[in-house]
Amino acid sequence: MFTSTANLLGWDQETNMPARAAPYRSEQLATLAGLSHRLSTEPDIGDWLDECEQHFSTDTTHGDDERLSQIVNVRAWRRDYERTKRLPPLLVEEFARTTALAREPWNQARRESNFGKFAPWLAKIVHLCQQQAECWGYDGCAYDALLDGYEPGACVADLAVLFRELEREITALLPSAVAATAGDSPHTGRHYPVSAQQEFNRKVIAAIGFDFSAGRVDVSSHPFCTDIGQNDCRLTTRYSELDFVSSLLFAMHETGHALYSQGLPERHFGTPAGASVSIGIHESQSRLWENQVGRSRGFWQYWYPVAVSHFPEFDLSFDQFLSWSNRVTPSHIRIASDEVTYNLHIILRFEMEQMLIGGQLAVSDLPSAWNERFEDLFGLSVPDDARGCLQDVHWSVGAFGYFPTYALGTLNAAQLFDAASRAIVGLDDELRAARYGHLLTWLRDNIHRHGRRHSPDQLMRMATGEPTSAKAFLRYLRATYGI
Amino acid sequence: MFTSTANLLGWDQETNMPARAAPYRSEQLATLAGLSHRLSTEPDIGDWLDECEQHFSTDTTHGDDERLSQIVNVRAWRRDYERTKRLPPLLVEEFARTTALAREPWNQARRESNFGKFAPWLAKIVHLCQQQAECWGYDGCAYDALLDGYEPGACVADLAVLFRELEREITALLPSAVAATAGDSPHTGRHYPVSAQQEFNRKVIAAIGFDFSAGRVDVSSHPFCTDIGQNDCRLTTRYSELDFVSSLLFAMHETGHALYSQGLPERHFGTPAGASVSIGIHESQSRLWENQVGRSRGFWQYWYPVAVSHFPEFDLSFDQFLSWSNRVTPSHIRIASDEVTYNLHIILRFEMEQMLIGGQLAVSDLPSAWNERFEDLFGLSVPDDARGCLQDVHWSVGAFGYFPTYALGTLNAAQLFDAASRAIVGLDDELRAARYGHLLTWLRDNIHRHGRRHSPDQLMRMATGEPTSAKAFLRYLRATYGI
Repeated sequence: MFTSTANLLGWDQETNMPARAAPYRSEQLATLAGLSHRLSTEPDIGDWLDECEQHFSTDTTHGDDERLSQIVNVRAWRRDYERTKRLPPLLVEEFARTTALAREPWNQARRESNFGKFAPWLAKIVHLCQQQAECWGYDGCAYDALLDGYEPGACVADLAVLFRELEREITALLPSAVAATAGDSPHTGRHYPVSAQQEFNRKVIAAIGFDFSAGRVDVSSHPFCTDIGQNDCRLTTRYSELDFVSSLLFAMHETGHALYSQGLPERHFGTPAGASVSIGIHESQSRLWENQVGRSRGFWQYWYPVAVSHFPEFDLSFDQFLSWSNRVTPSHIRIASDEVTYNLHIILRFEMEQMLIGGQLAVSDLPSAWNERFEDLFGLSVPDDARGCLQDVHWSVGAFGYFPTYALGTLNAAQLFDAASRAIVGLDDELRAARYGHLLTWLRDNIHRHGRRHSPDQLMRMATGEPTSAKAFLRYLRATYGI
Repeated sequence: MFTSTANLLGWDQETNMPARAAPYRSEQLATLAGLSHRLSTEPDIGDWLDECEQHFSTDTTHGDDERLSQIVNVRAWRRDYERTKRLPPLLVEEFARTTALAREPWNQARRESNFGKFAPWLAKIVHLCQQQAECWGYDGCAYDALLDGYEPGACVADLAVLFRELEREITALLPSAVAATAGDSPHTGRHYPVSAQQEFNRKVIAAIGFDFSAGRVDVSSHPFCTDIGQNDCRLTTRYSELDFVSSLLFAMHETGHALYSQGLPERHFGTPAGASVSIGIHESQSRLWENQVGRSRGFWQYWYPVAVSHFPEFDLSFDQFLSWSNRVTPSHIRIASDEVTYNLHIILRFEMEQMLIGGQLAVSDLPSAWNERFEDLFGLSVPDDARGCLQDVHWSVGAFGYFPTYALGTLNAAQLFDAASRAIVGLDDELRAARYGHLLTWLRDNIHRHGRRHSPDQLMRMATGEPTSAKAFLRYLRATYGI
């Protein structure tokens, strides 16, 4: 109840709030966070959990749905309760207040490409995250404690191995992918009005299964998706009138998140059995609709003529358009990057975050460390911090440990789509005909309906037969770019 | 803090919320109302107030601002605390939940003009309001206890006298006003696009002083204005493409409310010294900008040519346009009514509410009682309940006792404008030149900056030299319609 109300305050902050309202909004969020923390750490709750635990085994592999849901709920509430009660209330309020207040300085710093304006806020936020990690405790390193909040079970040791392989393989296939899609923009000189894009996007979003009677689509500078309450899931996108594909892919990405929310078991709403399991799994849903569906040849075989009918100036040939939409080219901005280089952006952030939280990198040295490693990974120099370490909102909102879940989601998406393709006969034909029902049902059955019943690792093993790895993703890249 | 958060939930419900989200939203509002009630009735608060009261005299006629504000705050907190703690928490939650849930049945009943669909909800809400009145207590009748929540100091005995005079005078001058403005609509066949209306309205709203960096304007079916937080005051309007004046007058009305909010002393934000004093005073601010300014000849001398430049199909002569915009004609819908018949709509509701709360009228008999008295007041029969007792949102949200403040606001507006006209040399010329600064400053000085320092009655006496009466309003009507 508090989370959903805070989500509305947050959604409103991004989409509607007038400029001068920010300071009070940060107080509202801090008060709500403090109150929610206080209520969710009352000692009574520990007693109730003790009592519940005496009545349940923890075996979730069989039993009827009602019994399993109860076990799932008690286990998840225990985990959340233990994590939450380790944080002192003042730290919780300070974190909420600081991250709400830091938004505007970050915005300004990015607009002016002036790292100094954001540096004191970032230093404070890093310090607050370090304090959180110490409160939560960890086996490996402090950063593990933060990771665990977004992706239960993830740790630096495992991710480092996975990301080393990814870096090696991506770097190896990158030159061929760049060469295969090179060329000037065929969109140059064309104009795609926002209103036509909105109409087109709405058709696609509805076709892939979004329920508009239980959600909406708005505009924000950084696209996101949030749950405001039961039957109220809202996503945003942003528009460029020079290219209608980017707004569509943002919207499809966020719709993937929304489909997960809308597919959670409704009877368990408000309890862990009806909640999403991790950000890495959430991101697999968004990436799958964005990449495996939205960038595919089959998808555009249906939607290309629809786009032609929506945009009077859209006169590109199908092949010209598709090649450009899937072009691969190292660039500075993560959210505008192609699907080959995307994970390199994540690897960079994963390394920076580890060093900041571990204390090996001072905030003042971040820009130079970022720029050096960026050049190493992408072969490009960084022209300014706006296109460097200031580009993402995440650190300003205190989301350290979040970025790695984007890479996990990307790998999970390819792996899940691979499994779905094997399970659904004729899936390619269906997608070519804009029939998304079977794919969505498969995702509902294998991911959505499980809520937090299984760990992310268990869920991936059950759905695909294997733990998360880079194999399916790399196969997908090679197939897409004919390498 | 809770109120402002609940206001955001309410604003969102009217402007953005998807249809299926209503049940959960009602739970959010109920939880927040219950929690807010629990926190604001803790016995500690009574002890703190006891202690404060021992240190202060209650003389608010002199002293420095800091001391006076403290006295005002303690006195107002005491009043609110005593009122609030008389309500049992379960009644508070039940009221919040029921009124949130009743919105959709009311909407449906109105759409279908089917009173039976709303009747059970209305019966429940009337019953909840009766329970509230019993908890609060009263000297005269139960309805007084509800009135006092919106207009401290108002009571049925006084209002009945005032409204009898109003009814008599309005009924007497109505035929001449109708005759003076009769004619067919000169707008027929013309079309005013919403986007052009939005742009035009925005210019007017900014000109009269609304600070867009601390607020916004949206669309809702029932225009309103709400405070989401410090520097965040939001108003709504609604559009008809057949007539641009109605959306402008709605917007100017709500902007009047917003100017009051934006003019409250900022250093006292969050305390009674920085809050509005009553709905009747609030409504005086909205009515003044809507009626005394927005319907005046002087106002349109400046804005008529601006309107001509915004609306390609606007080719009415100035006099033709102004006469039509101020036309007087008895009609069924309160919010579409002219300023002469407006108060008759209020008198009707005042009488129905009294009888419903007093138990003299059963909910099932409301339509016939309404229709009979309507015909008596307006000389028109009521074609269906959608244009009768189902037309207003107020009862569905439990706002019994609110309507009379609209009439008080209308009288106060005329009385305040009269006083301002005497105080500001050349005000007419200023308004003709779209210079609203002196008028706004006068309102800031005489109303806004006082917060809850004085009672509504004291405030009117200080600002105009007299208590609220119908005199200035009736003078204004006679002058406007040349009677």
